[in-house]
Amino acid sequence: MDEFSLIRRYFSTQDVKRGDVVLGIGDDAALLRVPPGQELAVTTDSLVSGVHFPEGLDAESVGHRSLAANLSDLAAMGATPAWVLLALTLPAADERWLAGFSRGFFALAKRHQTVLVGGNIARGPLNVTLIAQGFVPEGQALTRAGAQVGDLVYVTGHPGEAAAGLKLLQAGKADPKNPCVRRFTHPEPRIAAGQSLRGIASACIDVSDGLLADLGHLLEARGFGAKLGLDKLPLSKALLELQGREDAQRLALTGGDDYELCFTVHVDKTKAAEARLKEAGCPATCIGAVEGKPLIECVDGAGRVHTFDQPGHRHF
Amino acid sequence: MDEFSLIRRYFSTQDVKRGDVVLGIGDDAALLRVPPGQELAVTTDSLVSGVHFPEGLDAESVGHRSLAANLSDLAAMGATPAWVLLALTLPAADERWLAGFSRGFFALAKRHQTVLVGGNIARGPLNVTLIAQGFVPEGQALTRAGAQVGDLVYVTGHPGEAAAGLKLLQAGKADPKNPCVRRFTHPEPRIAAGQSLRGIASACIDVSDGLLADLGHLLEARGFGAKLGLDKLPLSKALLELQGREDAQRLALTGGDDYELCFTVHVDKTKAAEARLKEAGCPATCIGAVEGKPLIECVDGAGRVHTFDQPGHRHF
Repeated sequence: MDEFSLIRRYFSTQDVKRGDVVLGIGDDAALLRVPPGQELAVTTDSLVSGVHFPEGLDAESVGHRSLAANLSDLAAMGATPAWVLLALTLPAADERWLAGFSRGFFALAKRHQTVLVGGNIARGPLNVTLIAQGFVPEGQALTRAGAQVGDLVYVTGHPGEAAAGLKLLQAGKADPKNPCVRRFTHPEPRIAAGQSLRGIASACIDVSDGLLADLGHLLEARGFGAKLGLDKLPLSKALLELQGREDAQRLALTGGDDYELCFTVHVDKTKAAEARLKEAGCPATCIGAVEGKPLIECVDGAGRVHTFDQPGHRHF
Repeated sequence: MDEFSLIRRYFSTQDVKRGDVVLGIGDDAALLRVPPGQELAVTTDSLVSGVHFPEGLDAESVGHRSLAANLSDLAAMGATPAWVLLALTLPAADERWLAGFSRGFFALAKRHQTVLVGGNIARGPLNVTLIAQGFVPEGQALTRAGAQVGDLVYVTGHPGEAAAGLKLLQAGKADPKNPCVRRFTHPEPRIAAGQSLRGIASACIDVSDGLLADLGHLLEARGFGAKLGLDKLPLSKALLELQGREDAQRLALTGGDDYELCFTVHVDKTKAAEARLKEAGCPATCIGAVEGKPLIECVDGAGRVHTFDQPGHRHF
């Protein structure tokens, strides 16, 4: 089966239609219209088998995760997803895999009213690259740039769960219904939370490499650091049951793949932030504050500083 | 060296600046502004080592070719390139390879005033995926859809050269200055030609899989075919010297990687098309006409129909 037949069979039936797509899949390029007054937010992320997910991970999860990783980048900008392109490199035209992949992919796309407008299928070692585009009103995007000393540091959801789930998957004893396993296989991009933080958060990033690593990216450009309270970490019951408190703290700080948002808020705006996030149905927890020296310190209830190795995912 | 250092060293120094880039490399997503009255043309294409180019092909050529393949898709829409994202998967952080790749990439980007606005570097088998975006005035894009019976079929440049160059490269006896080798290592996207054909060509496609295969894509949606004159094929001197007439014809029709444009023009507009292309500095040749039956026939000077195997590049 050639590229064109594969696209027709697995990627051309979509429930979502959008008026801003002038021309979708099937020509040399898609033709799209950005609504007036909106900026375009664009991101790309690749998932490589054996690097970003265990070989043999269910194709439906690969489809979900690859889209979730990209939508999460849009969430961190406060953007609303609109269009996606898929560059899929496959060792062979495995139709069972493609059916699962497209099922996971389109289920998540539909929930966020996102249309696949183009892509490419090539032969080679498995590589899933997505490009996601969304809109944000001019000048209102969240960026990594605005944190100030004294701002409070928040994180959404329950970081560490995905890393604990990955450990179960790698050990071959994962129950797909375990909340931690589910967090790895089906992370939820925090789209509504990102949108709700426009005009409120001073800086925002998504947590894909690990909380300490990603918070570091957000602070390092300004030469700042932070003090985090270990007791404040929002450790979920599922994570604590699997790992115990000490390992749970470590995974919450250094595990990747959570796709939560980490953001900073000026003290005057914390009430507004918390109200907006509640409205968006997104749990969020204050875990510390931005400090002037370029170092992230993790402090326990007795004031002792703890250090954590494995600062997130190293790409090389 | 981690992903971030690699990006800083090889991908953050660009000569081109654009006012429509609100936020470029370094955040969760780029922020971009599409000028009023313009549609956005978006495409993605992947190059896999050993599939789309010989393993060990000079990195500078890989950088050039990967961008050229994507810009060529924009050319086929009549679009003007603006922004590009790069999703690079590499087995290791080979700095010599990265230096060559970025040299080839940015040299071509500069000529087309195209800015790299984001991307991703991951570890894994070599895979170069690019996403190119450009502008086209609303409603003026060229598409594959408008060919009519009786329209004349044109091709730019000298198809077949790239396939002949690839054969030399695969045989390990390529002179990098040979025009056919150069056509494979440094194809020129036909941006100016595509723009000049807005409002003139009835349909357009770029020739990446082979002239017969790509012309077939352009005609098949309408159930049409074409009659092509073998004697009309614009075989270059360099190609004829390497291959002789019969093989040169075969490569011109079935070889891929040329990144020329194939387009159709209503008979009333051929003078305008030829004048516009001359102004754009792009050679183009009429090679036949669209016919009502769904078959592409290649006819020699004596009226005999020839058939050609290998209908372009099969992706699986």
